[in-house]
Amino acid sequence: MIQLKNKGQLIVLSGPSGCGKNTICNALLKRNPKLWLSISCTSREPRGAEQDGKDYFFLTAQEFEKKIEQHDFLEYAKYNGNYYGTPKSKIEEYLNQGIDVILEIEVQGALKVKEKIKDALFIFIMPPSMQELKRRLENRGTENEAKIMNRFRIAYQEINEISKYNYVVVNDDVDLAVEKVNAIITAEKCRVDRIEDVYLNSEEEEIHEFLMDKEFDNHDISI
Amino acid sequence: MIQLKNKGQLIVLSGPSGCGKNTICNALLKRNPKLWLSISCTSREPRGAEQDGKDYFFLTAQEFEKKIEQHDFLEYAKYNGNYYGTPKSKIEEYLNQGIDVILEIEVQGALKVKEKIKDALFIFIMPPSMQELKRRLENRGTENEAKIMNRFRIAYQEINEISKYNYVVVNDDVDLAVEKVNAIITAEKCRVDRIEDVYLNSEEEEIHEFLMDKEFDNHDISI
Repeated sequence: MIQLKNKGQLIVLSGPSGCGKNTICNALLKRNPKLWLSISCTSREPRGAEQDGKDYFFLTAQEFEKKIEQHDFLEYAKYNGNYYGTPKSKIEEYLNQGIDVILEIEVQGALKVKEKIKDALFIFIMPPSMQELKRRLENRGTENEAKIMNRFRIAYQEINEISKYNYVVVNDDVDLAVEKVNAIITAEKCRVDRIEDVYLNSEEEEIHEFLMDKEFDNHDISI
Repeated sequence: MIQLKNKGQLIVLSGPSGCGKNTICNALLKRNPKLWLSISCTSREPRGAEQDGKDYFFLTAQEFEKKIEQHDFLEYAKYNGNYYGTPKSKIEEYLNQGIDVILEIEVQGALKVKEKIKDALFIFIMPPSMQELKRRLENRGTENEAKIMNRFRIAYQEINEISKYNYVVVNDDVDLAVEKVNAIITAEKCRVDRIEDVYLNSEEEEIHEFLMDKEFDNHDISI
């Protein structure tokens, strides 16, 4: 009786380094297997057990640059001499099939995506406190103090960008945060502006005609 | 670290007669006991096991009219010689305490509430089809054919009002519909515009000062 817009929803999950967006994203995918996780491209070498097509699409710098020329990225950036980017074609393919796509991405990348896809769903994952964020960054144990403080400084700047997002989820409890993100995805599908049309099928049209012809004054009925 | 607006949310659950809003509302209250259900006032006599303060606040016509004069209703109407209305003071009291209030109400009443409280959350409960709606109205067994057809005609008109609501939930499965309404309530609390302030507590201020003074060029940090 109502018809929803046929396109999938692009869900952008973002937040400062150490906010826990990766943990939330993985738990969300387990809970909601209908979501498709967009995989980034990179020109850096695979590390450890990383697999091509699972963790990243591994490209040479030349292949990456060709894709840039072909405008095949929603957004891309160069860190430490390596390219990282979000490929556009797969995402569009899934969205057109009505499949929801999730993008787990840094804040600066998310803001670039927003310039191109305004009706995507932007969710900011917020650390419970700056102390907790600092603790998480320190506990990673892979970076020196200067690098940690730099990430921490960037987090401060990024938290200033929350007004550009649609939703904020505080990650003080992973299960609760996943439940909230899932609720946001469910709720968005019920938004009135997601409805394409209110239509009648043939049987309903018969009832409608019956109402129109036989029973009532019909000047104000127009479905 | 972030502070939400302190007020509760007014949730208006509405839809045509026979859409199942009452069943959904009762199941929702069981699932989410933090919600407070607003109880209507009426000047009609109690029926069967109806209790004052539980099913309705039963008032005399005179008491009701006095409340009208005192502007104590969010909305009211007269059906079959009896008054029905939504009392304002209790709702405001709960909302100011940060408690979410649910209002299960007819479409015309909901639209009157919208004129007064624009930022309430308007959820339209949609029957799965017009045939199913007709079947449900017929199965009530308390009304004659003419009355059923009249309710059915009104439902047609009311479905035309969905664009004035924020969300639409199709009630083809009660459990699923309750889950969706609950998700909408959860998601709304995560909306960026529900955030009053991003603040730092004293410990965070120390970290902030540390960042400002000791480590970095700080011209672009302003939390």
